[in-house]
Amino acid sequence: MKLIIVGGVAGGASAAARARRMSEQAEIILFERGPDVSFANCGLPYYLGGEIKERSKLLVTTPDKLKARFEIDVRVRTSVEKIDRANKLVYVRDLATNREYTESYDKLILSPGAAPLRPNLPGIDLPGIYTLRNLQDTDHIKASLNGKIKNAVVIGGGFIGLELIENFLKLGIETSLVEYNDQVLPPFDKEMTTPIVEVLQRRGANLLLGDAAESFTTSSQGIVVHLKSGRKLVTQLAVLGVGVRPENKLAIDAGLEVGKRGGIHVNAHMQTTDPDIYAVGDAVETTDFLFGGVTQIPLAGPANRQGRIAADHALGKETRYRGTQGTAIVGVFEITAAMTGASEKWLRQNNRSFRAVYVHPANHASYYPGAEQMTIKLLFDPDNGRVLGGQVVGGSGADKRTDVLAMAIQAGMTVFDLEEAELAYAPAYGSAKDPINMAGFVAANWIRGDHPQMGMGEWLALPETDRPFLLDVRTPTEFEAGHLPGATNIPVDDLRKRLEEIPKDKEIATYCQVGQRGYIALRILMQSGFRAMNLSGGYKAYRLFVPEGKGESAKLK
Amino acid sequence: MKLIIVGGVAGGASAAARARRMSEQAEIILFERGPDVSFANCGLPYYLGGEIKERSKLLVTTPDKLKARFEIDVRVRTSVEKIDRANKLVYVRDLATNREYTESYDKLILSPGAAPLRPNLPGIDLPGIYTLRNLQDTDHIKASLNGKIKNAVVIGGGFIGLELIENFLKLGIETSLVEYNDQVLPPFDKEMTTPIVEVLQRRGANLLLGDAAESFTTSSQGIVVHLKSGRKLVTQLAVLGVGVRPENKLAIDAGLEVGKRGGIHVNAHMQTTDPDIYAVGDAVETTDFLFGGVTQIPLAGPANRQGRIAADHALGKETRYRGTQGTAIVGVFEITAAMTGASEKWLRQNNRSFRAVYVHPANHASYYPGAEQMTIKLLFDPDNGRVLGGQVVGGSGADKRTDVLAMAIQAGMTVFDLEEAELAYAPAYGSAKDPINMAGFVAANWIRGDHPQMGMGEWLALPETDRPFLLDVRTPTEFEAGHLPGATNIPVDDLRKRLEEIPKDKEIATYCQVGQRGYIALRILMQSGFRAMNLSGGYKAYRLFVPEGKGESAKLK
Repeated sequence: MKLIIVGGVAGGASAAARARRMSEQAEIILFERGPDVSFANCGLPYYLGGEIKERSKLLVTTPDKLKARFEIDVRVRTSVEKIDRANKLVYVRDLATNREYTESYDKLILSPGAAPLRPNLPGIDLPGIYTLRNLQDTDHIKASLNGKIKNAVVIGGGFIGLELIENFLKLGIETSLVEYNDQVLPPFDKEMTTPIVEVLQRRGANLLLGDAAESFTTSSQGIVVHLKSGRKLVTQLAVLGVGVRPENKLAIDAGLEVGKRGGIHVNAHMQTTDPDIYAVGDAVETTDFLFGGVTQIPLAGPANRQGRIAADHALGKETRYRGTQGTAIVGVFEITAAMTGASEKWLRQNNRSFRAVYVHPANHASYYPGAEQMTIKLLFDPDNGRVLGGQVVGGSGADKRTDVLAMAIQAGMTVFDLEEAELAYAPAYGSAKDPINMAGFVAANWIRGDHPQMGMGEWLALPETDRPFLLDVRTPTEFEAGHLPGATNIPVDDLRKRLEEIPKDKEIATYCQVGQRGYIALRILMQSGFRAMNLSGGYKAYRLFVPEGKGESAKLK
Repeated sequence: MKLIIVGGVAGGASAAARARRMSEQAEIILFERGPDVSFANCGLPYYLGGEIKERSKLLVTTPDKLKARFEIDVRVRTSVEKIDRANKLVYVRDLATNREYTESYDKLILSPGAAPLRPNLPGIDLPGIYTLRNLQDTDHIKASLNGKIKNAVVIGGGFIGLELIENFLKLGIETSLVEYNDQVLPPFDKEMTTPIVEVLQRRGANLLLGDAAESFTTSSQGIVVHLKSGRKLVTQLAVLGVGVRPENKLAIDAGLEVGKRGGIHVNAHMQTTDPDIYAVGDAVETTDFLFGGVTQIPLAGPANRQGRIAADHALGKETRYRGTQGTAIVGVFEITAAMTGASEKWLRQNNRSFRAVYVHPANHASYYPGAEQMTIKLLFDPDNGRVLGGQVVGGSGADKRTDVLAMAIQAGMTVFDLEEAELAYAPAYGSAKDPINMAGFVAANWIRGDHPQMGMGEWLALPETDRPFLLDVRTPTEFEAGHLPGATNIPVDDLRKRLEEIPKDKEIATYCQVGQRGYIALRILMQSGFRAMNLSGGYKAYRLFVPEGKGESAKLK
């Protein structure tokens, strides 16, 4: 059995090690075009920022170590140029010597990864404009950072873009972000990214959302980035983080099927359309775990597991990849943003029925020092309560609740299960009613008809004339500090005595600061003969949609 | 509809608020014997230690607030003395005035809690010997702490006992712990408590495990605690944390059924044997979620959820409590210990088949600064892989992995599901192969027959003559620093070349530092014709069973 693996990072390295553990007899050759195998690509921005001090820490393993421990014949700086499927051969080029040769295979695993997009814009190849994929890119950027750079532009506000901005700002570099979308973190629903935008602004980033680079020129001050809006940014360093495209050339040339977005098509065993050729990692399209469609999400966790599965199956084990649910996380200064499963925008685009609730709990008992708030947006099926997605943004503990929701999605659990989740509680770790329980209560109460709600996004989309009577049930002090346009203030504790002030003939929308008092007010109203609903997540949710000092609310100030 | 609730903390307060939200019409009376409702009992040790500075923070709500917001007639310092089930009346005494009166009820919810045990020992009622249940106890202890106390004794090493020791030590008070069992945290398996014992010792606690107080006397220096071992401790303050007993007198007097351990018997709707009387919280026995038997676990999370369920059902909603899985957590200085589901000792006592694996992963990518190690003990069903229990002890992130395992247990997930769990990964939050994935891999590989293992506890229980050939596959440096008695050292990377040094006719037990190299060595051996197994969790697991400087290993030093 001769197994050839193309690509030595994440999926490829996982496949190689797993294959050896499963078979001492197999001959395993790993080809890697670059000089390094299994480097920590997720750590690159933190090495640039100096958070990770030693470059050697990024080298998770080396060819020598893979040889010693796993008897893997690792050939770096070696490019696989062609696959001859009929004869089960790969054509290989040693990049150091330019020597070309062939290797035969019984099974072939492709783990070529995805390359950063470098859009075909005028001036894109000027010096000082980088992408970030590997240690060599990192070395180049790091060299230019060393004391000489005062400002930088990051183009693209996705995961890597945000990690770069944070690290550049920490180095004291004035940094601008240009993002084509009108939000950072495009996989997230826009309102859930507001805390990220706010923390970047507090830390001094110059954010240009809804704008795009159109061309690059040079001036005496450095690179000039010409934007679609007509603005110009002069910078010493520009880094592109505008997405990736699967490295699919080898697969396409070999006649393997490739999806619309370029991902190599694989079945649940990670086999391509040639059953002796597997593909894993950022280069493949896979199955959406929740809805079964095709998806293409470049993430390290799935890449590693796919590598294992491909190796197992190539060696005769019956294993299957269950699909990807898109769990992802990013930290930007003190704010964490994480998601799992489907977003609202995805559900809308795909005409799936859903409901969304917002809660804003503290990460642990509020009477214990250091509590930090988070916002959870929980998306669920209104018919059966199945959890469809979760987004969590805030301070400590956002990662924990995301992982809990990831498990709920994997297990097909419902919001009723979240109500009953028995999570670890002591004052420093959580609350007797954990944020997950709270999200479950709010969602389950809606399904049971006890807590009719409207999302703040839907509220804002209603024509003003169609809006229900809007009742702010917070204290007068809170109301004065800022409220939704058109709201009437009756504090919840006074509501029972002041019901006659509320119109009987109109629907009532209640809200408070985070949603809980609004819910209590709603219950009082519903049981007193009013038609009512609660604006989910209250004023805090409103401020995610309409940040302080912007839009509708600005006129209140 | 007139609802009477007895007990205003956790379950009782939850029931009252929920009942009002579900019914504006109900008359709701809440009786509480003490002066406070809904105080933060889990915060009391941290108020003693000064972590929580303001006493007022412990008052989560007040009678006035419950009246204003929920129209609940709260009567504190009022004791319910008797239930007349035939006439649906409670006999009540106002403790301030001693006035007695009756109230009728349609539905009655009992949430009396559990009282700290105060064993009937000579001298137990001497001044300076406390239990900790409520704010009044706390005030007394705090008054005696104020500057005057140099030393203290905590009797009982459970959750509250450990929280007290930590807080006393932080105040600079010399503190001894007396615990009847030979371990702290009796619900945990003993080896998993070793890091807690070690951190307490590092922080200067005097630990007396396997000992017990037999009597108390006074001397000029303070209280003398006479121990079963013959030792005496002289102290200025003694706090008992030796467990609780359900406050079941009211229920027993009313002829309601009570279980063997004193918990009031309830069905899934939290109804006692009288369908108009519910009971919730620390006073009840409930169902073991995993195995369906009776259990009695006093925890705040379940108490709160039971209160909701009782209120819902009393008001005509069809709700059910799913049982308790015993998720619990405690922090002691920098170490967190948490568990969910069944322990090994429970599974043994109940003759359940199980396997246990240990992994020692870092909480996040080890190349990112600040990574902290944890140990996960995963218990699972060897037939189908169902997760039966998890214990996690270590630094940051132990709580997160416990919650993930809690969800897995709730959902009936298997170790195969843990392998595939898609958790949030970025270098500061986790690893591409999360600790949960790692535990899943190790367990699932065992079930698949790819990774035969033996627990370190079983290894140590084997007579020396019956032990397999013991192979330490770490580096010589690691081996020299400490190893299992009788081990032969062949580093994993040399193993393929040195197979002839290993006996063909004996079973081989491999081990390394944490288990991974032992597994690779095992795979090499198994595929080279040896019968082999890996000691799960390696040398680190050994050191949980046999701490540095103790037992078997001491002679190696």
